[in-house]
Amino acid sequence: MPLGERLGDKSESRYCGVETEFDDDMPQLLSFNISSGGFDFVVSPLMNPTYRPSLMENDSKGSGVLPFAGSDLVLSPSQWSSHVVGKISSWIDLDSEDETLRMDSEIALKQEISWASHLSLQACLLPAPRGASCANYARCVNQILQGLNNMQLWLRIPLEKSDDDAVGGSSDHLVGGEIDSWEWWNSFRLLCEHHNQLSVVLDILSSLPSANSLGRWFGESVRAAIIHTNSFLTNARGYPCLSKRHQKLMTGFFNHSIQIVISGKPAHSLPIGSSELAANDADNHVEGMQRHPLRSYLDYVGYLYQRMDPLPEQERFELGYRDFLQSPLQPLMDNLEAQTYETFEKDTVKYIQYQRAICKALLDRIPDEQVSTITTVLMVVGAGRGPLVRAALQAAEETGRKLKVYAVEKNPNAVVTLHSLVKLEGWENNVTIVSSDMRCWDAPEKADILVSELLGSFGDNELSPECLDGAQRFLKLDGISIPSSYTSFIQPVTASKLYNDVKSHKDLLHFETAYVVKLHNVARLAPSQPVFTFTHPDNSKKKSNQRYKKLQFEIPSDTGSAMVHGFAGYFDATLYKDVHLGIEPSMATPNMFSWFAIFFPLRTPVCIRPGSPLEVHFWRCCGSTKVWYEWCVSSPSPSPLHNSNGRSYWVGL
Amino acid sequence: MPLGERLGDKSESRYCGVETEFDDDMPQLLSFNISSGGFDFVVSPLMNPTYRPSLMENDSKGSGVLPFAGSDLVLSPSQWSSHVVGKISSWIDLDSEDETLRMDSEIALKQEISWASHLSLQACLLPAPRGASCANYARCVNQILQGLNNMQLWLRIPLEKSDDDAVGGSSDHLVGGEIDSWEWWNSFRLLCEHHNQLSVVLDILSSLPSANSLGRWFGESVRAAIIHTNSFLTNARGYPCLSKRHQKLMTGFFNHSIQIVISGKPAHSLPIGSSELAANDADNHVEGMQRHPLRSYLDYVGYLYQRMDPLPEQERFELGYRDFLQSPLQPLMDNLEAQTYETFEKDTVKYIQYQRAICKALLDRIPDEQVSTITTVLMVVGAGRGPLVRAALQAAEETGRKLKVYAVEKNPNAVVTLHSLVKLEGWENNVTIVSSDMRCWDAPEKADILVSELLGSFGDNELSPECLDGAQRFLKLDGISIPSSYTSFIQPVTASKLYNDVKSHKDLLHFETAYVVKLHNVARLAPSQPVFTFTHPDNSKKKSNQRYKKLQFEIPSDTGSAMVHGFAGYFDATLYKDVHLGIEPSMATPNMFSWFAIFFPLRTPVCIRPGSPLEVHFWRCCGSTKVWYEWCVSSPSPSPLHNSNGRSYWVGL
Repeated sequence: MPLGERLGDKSESRYCGVETEFDDDMPQLLSFNISSGGFDFVVSPLMNPTYRPSLMENDSKGSGVLPFAGSDLVLSPSQWSSHVVGKISSWIDLDSEDETLRMDSEIALKQEISWASHLSLQACLLPAPRGASCANYARCVNQILQGLNNMQLWLRIPLEKSDDDAVGGSSDHLVGGEIDSWEWWNSFRLLCEHHNQLSVVLDILSSLPSANSLGRWFGESVRAAIIHTNSFLTNARGYPCLSKRHQKLMTGFFNHSIQIVISGKPAHSLPIGSSELAANDADNHVEGMQRHPLRSYLDYVGYLYQRMDPLPEQERFELGYRDFLQSPLQPLMDNLEAQTYETFEKDTVKYIQYQRAICKALLDRIPDEQVSTITTVLMVVGAGRGPLVRAALQAAEETGRKLKVYAVEKNPNAVVTLHSLVKLEGWENNVTIVSSDMRCWDAPEKADILVSELLGSFGDNELSPECLDGAQRFLKLDGISIPSSYTSFIQPVTASKLYNDVKSHKDLLHFETAYVVKLHNVARLAPSQPVFTFTHPDNSKKKSNQRYKKLQFEIPSDTGSAMVHGFAGYFDATLYKDVHLGIEPSMATPNMFSWFAIFFPLRTPVCIRPGSPLEVHFWRCCGSTKVWYEWCVSSPSPSPLHNSNGRSYWVGL
Repeated sequence: MPLGERLGDKSESRYCGVETEFDDDMPQLLSFNISSGGFDFVVSPLMNPTYRPSLMENDSKGSGVLPFAGSDLVLSPSQWSSHVVGKISSWIDLDSEDETLRMDSEIALKQEISWASHLSLQACLLPAPRGASCANYARCVNQILQGLNNMQLWLRIPLEKSDDDAVGGSSDHLVGGEIDSWEWWNSFRLLCEHHNQLSVVLDILSSLPSANSLGRWFGESVRAAIIHTNSFLTNARGYPCLSKRHQKLMTGFFNHSIQIVISGKPAHSLPIGSSELAANDADNHVEGMQRHPLRSYLDYVGYLYQRMDPLPEQERFELGYRDFLQSPLQPLMDNLEAQTYETFEKDTVKYIQYQRAICKALLDRIPDEQVSTITTVLMVVGAGRGPLVRAALQAAEETGRKLKVYAVEKNPNAVVTLHSLVKLEGWENNVTIVSSDMRCWDAPEKADILVSELLGSFGDNELSPECLDGAQRFLKLDGISIPSSYTSFIQPVTASKLYNDVKSHKDLLHFETAYVVKLHNVARLAPSQPVFTFTHPDNSKKKSNQRYKKLQFEIPSDTGSAMVHGFAGYFDATLYKDVHLGIEPSMATPNMFSWFAIFFPLRTPVCIRPGSPLEVHFWRCCGSTKVWYEWCVSSPSPSPLHNSNGRSYWVGL
């Protein structure tokens, strides 16, 4: 049964599994661990661990029956697929120097996967690679992946090498030597080309690597974490508990749909009969049933799950958007739909910031002694259905300044709404509606303040610079633009889910497109850095909206190596003086939801290592009918130039 | 006029060019350098070097005429395209910190290329990159390449950084700092994705890098070499000549279709009236014409060209096959055509080796005292049209041994020829023809000697192991197989031409196929290493023809970094004892032409650096209907597994 209920959380991390030994009697195994034990699924060997193909042959012509745990009929199809993860024999070693063992391993691996497939299991757990090389193992798994049904293959990877010989249980998987275990995963998945049915299961031991090193995994395809009983501490009352760092990691797993599996022998002898900590105590009193020896560990994991704060409303709303790639809007070329306006207008935080900025600008521009004599001309360019008009009028009221507003909007459908808004609110004397593209409007007078919100997730990517260049004609020379400037930012990320989604289209176009996306299953590898800045108004002579920026990112030395699948992009805008607005993580405006991040993929992911900086180039290119970005990596090894001439992705003027 | 005539050589390296300054008067420039000067083409600036776009604009509304050298009408279209290579303004610096210079550079570069395109020039010479970074330069060139007509872009790369400030002439191109100039090229072409209209022109100075470092370039797309007058030495009579190492390099260029361009001011003052060295002396006496100031350099280059040995017949025959990818034969699945038999039967060296091997085997098997009592049973399996039958009978005659020959052949068309051969030669008493696949022939007796030639370029790739496994049934337990063993070899190569040819198919299939190819424009980066060995007969119990081999290659430290586009494959076969046959370069059988090398491409080329070994894995996999190879690189960075399950390339059983 699930670990608990959490508002909005329908992820798989509510289910907890247990790793078991081989058992001939699968029904008994399920009954013991699930029906009475309280676990949701078992991770169990399918084949007798003494089996070796090379010994079978000598066994003359036997019955031809492989030593699997029961026939497919011992469980119902739904039991097999919901409750059993197949654990591939752990003696398998495909990169052994011993050719017989290698051959045996290949045969057994293929037999077991074939059996698991036959049973429609959802996943099989592959034993961890052993030595420095895993090429033959990867080759064999890759062959299997080419023809596999929907089953997932979970490659077991120790989070950190075992420095403890007395680990017991499954210690044979935990040989790590001196290599960073992430490198095993990286080699394996590169050899298997990021196959989307291959993912990771992490083995968690008592010692944990650094936070940066752990952080890498949240951008990878991690399905489960196996936590060993001897990773638990003992609390004052003799019950198992986890260190603060382990607890934090578990919360991270819960938040990233990573299932927990408990493994090992009980390492805590509980006071007999005591069960204060058990949340679902009732389950333990099934007549004549013995309490599951790992029940106190399961209870503790359930306790950690239930202890988590419920998801805030905004996050619940955004759950469905997590790591879902969307094409950026083209509000200049296309007209937005009513629904889009509706969504964005709800973002009160954004309009509060605008109102604050307009207030400050009005106060700066009109001294108190001129309040009654001067009327400020404010133009909202790109007025949409009017939220910025409202913010401007409210600012005028708040500051006691006289205001004349022009609301310029190119979308004739939005103009309809604007008209009825003005009528409804009785703004006829203060607001003039102009149905025109700001780039060609012939304004009857010049503006003191130009207010616009033409920003995309990457700041200039919805062509705010080009639009405001057009509007600047009717701004007084000493006029104010709100926003007065905006800057884009990028940072390298591990994002295997996004990479695989882009790859699934099997074309160049999708690899050279930027996407709007609610980043979640992502590892941010280095702080973001500014890319392009635009300032308004800009009265310089040779103004150009073309930009070129070279950036260097260095990952922290305790991260280890990491994979860069692309770049997360953000913006920060200065509306007026100290009033800003933005989504750059370190200074994001709180509780604002109008913008998700933008994601620039890389056609080939780049592996970076501490001490060897990642050099990245971004261009903003302008043609007569479109604006586009090009990007590339030049170091540690040069990538192709992405989106040359805007061949795949561009924003229409 | 061409440097000279060389039997069979129709390559472009017969033509020699000269680099010139900007000249408004193109007809005069051509007349001086070509008609009277003796050069075949000029490499000349198209635009006045004082032009800067940013200055033009200040120049108010001028005529709008760009300062090109003349109009397109001053030369005929064929003169433009045959005699002029456009030299892009050398002041261009697209990676400058100075934004104005960067913008000017981008505009001028695009204008000049556009003009050269308009003139249908065959090529433009791009100035060398300047600093450590060339990303913006590459981005701009890449944009141009996307929409270019057939014109080639030649990127100038100094072979070695200039350590001499007084280089004169084009010294502004030769700033190299501490970086290996190959890295410039490598970054540039990776950013431009190996575009096949982008190639290299090498600047040759007086000092040369190591032979290994030079060797890398012969696998790259090098179109021309610019040799500077001050790279020449002076001979005893005051004439220019080159060092031995330079001479060797020039011969390398000639052999790889790399054109020579002479550049710089004359650095040798010749004795007046002397012209002993000039090979084409007559040309100099055109009435009233002045001798071209670089004529003695041209004459010396012509002398080097003419001095080369003529191409041997075999190489002339193979010229058309150089770097041309062919699919390997499938002689088991398909029947060879008469023409194919015809070609291979002409390879006398191969049959001489077989005859030597059979002789030795007969002498070993039959002591002189038993010559008259014992008849050796020899079976030729895969007899084709009979050349090995003939070799066997000749060996019997040579050694005075009695021989009974079975000629087993599965191709019914070849059996027709075999029959008429036996009749024609009167071999009816010694030769029995069997029209059958050796894998299923029910032999009437067992053989003493089994002779076969089922080898492909990679040894086992035409399924010799599987065929001989089938034939081994009718070999006596102490019988001899000729060949007794064979081993495949691979070595990493730079092969940009082959890579681009594979890439041009734009599919996975061609990147996962091995090709038979006469390697020429290739750099062999490390000695070859053995891969798979098969031994016959093999009486071991658990015989398998599956193989797995892990190899490590280290490139010499004085090579610098290099690009691996794939692996050249070879074989060496032991026919009998010390009689071998093979194409592995270090021990290849001389004058044998039956086999070209095999080439295994990499989907993504791998850059390797000295001190960081290349780790490669090769598998030979066997299914019920086919045999295939899989391969991958695991270090310095893992590649995808190539040809998983033989999805792209396989040999039918």
